[in-house]
Amino acid sequence: MTQPRLSIVFVLYPGVTQLDFTGPYQFLSRLPGSATVVASVDGGDMQADGLTFSGLTKLSDIEQCDVICVPGGFGTTEAMGDQVLLAHLRRLAVGARYVTSVCTGSLLLAAAGLLQGKRAACHWAWREQLGVMGAIPDDGRVVRAGIDFALTLVAEIAGEDFAKGLQLGLEYAPAPPFNSGRPETAEPEVYERVEQLYALRRDGTAAAARAAAERLKLAQT
Amino acid sequence: MTQPRLSIVFVLYPGVTQLDFTGPYQFLSRLPGSATVVASVDGGDMQADGLTFSGLTKLSDIEQCDVICVPGGFGTTEAMGDQVLLAHLRRLAVGARYVTSVCTGSLLLAAAGLLQGKRAACHWAWREQLGVMGAIPDDGRVVRAGIDFALTLVAEIAGEDFAKGLQLGLEYAPAPPFNSGRPETAEPEVYERVEQLYALRRDGTAAAARAAAERLKLAQT
Repeated sequence: MTQPRLSIVFVLYPGVTQLDFTGPYQFLSRLPGSATVVASVDGGDMQADGLTFSGLTKLSDIEQCDVICVPGGFGTTEAMGDQVLLAHLRRLAVGARYVTSVCTGSLLLAAAGLLQGKRAACHWAWREQLGVMGAIPDDGRVVRAGIDFALTLVAEIAGEDFAKGLQLGLEYAPAPPFNSGRPETAEPEVYERVEQLYALRRDGTAAAARAAAERLKLAQT
Repeated sequence: MTQPRLSIVFVLYPGVTQLDFTGPYQFLSRLPGSATVVASVDGGDMQADGLTFSGLTKLSDIEQCDVICVPGGFGTTEAMGDQVLLAHLRRLAVGARYVTSVCTGSLLLAAAGLLQGKRAACHWAWREQLGVMGAIPDDGRVVRAGIDFALTLVAEIAGEDFAKGLQLGLEYAPAPPFNSGRPETAEPEVYERVEQLYALRRDGTAAAARAAAERLKLAQT
């Protein structure tokens, strides 16, 4: 394969949802010529949903990368106020070809000021917070589903044929037993129950979004 | 929630495919009352596709569990000859309510003698090796796709309503950009290319399957 060497960085933080990065990682790490790195502010072991990830890279040790991917998770609320993390996102975004996120990871890109006036997707329960920070909430699918996003990116970088072979090799042929993955398709009582659970968490995220928006406005004036 | 405490063990080994356990883990670890553990023979750090997992449990420290899940990976070929690993699978299977696998993980269950005369699924490129070890290769979907399998199991254990809520909460609504995840749907040239790549690896797996079958026969006589 004659792809140029491509450096891909997944940015982790406490409270990240592990599948949001392990899913895309599985596909992107098999890109020919790619170097895939998992990084955090301090590079220490990272707990995520009960799994412990070791061997992380410190963000300050990464000079430049081609792809940034910020996974989502309940920890975004806290991370939206982490000025060191946000500064690294801004710094790395300057030289990156692709600045991407999965699920609520877009809230961190928005809090970093990287989505001003830009379309972005987010988990349905948190989508409106993007608007608070100057992004344009978008219902687009690809930006949201981690593996689908990764496969789309693989195709863009290495071509459709390679992406299709990778999909076959990893036998990615999802067939969920239920059709409850989105508010539009879930039964109303299922939606109501989950929505109420998430509403409890949303106040904190909304406050973090307003604080981030305030900082972005101050930085612009 | 009033579910009984349920212990779930993911069995790792060198060369495991990380998404095969991180995918189901994301769903099963959110089962009410569940205790989800990632284990290996020696409990040391485990590299998988470039990620490093720490804090693993030693299999010998697990007395009993309700669910065993064996993920797949290229490392199955080697692991099929690991008699310590196979003995742990046999031991834990005795008291388990669910003995499960993802992708080529079924080759390890078969090598341990746990699938004699039983239907089992496997990655398409390795499926026939199951038959060599006395299992009945099955094209069934649920046993194969990690996340779909997990969601099905969650529904069986905690009820459909809970499973649907979890699917909505994790926004699992896959929409792959290509339909190449299975040999039947992939374009012929994509299939040929991947099949040829995997054929190179299959000789080793076939030899391991024959050796395991021989051991199983000897054990029975």
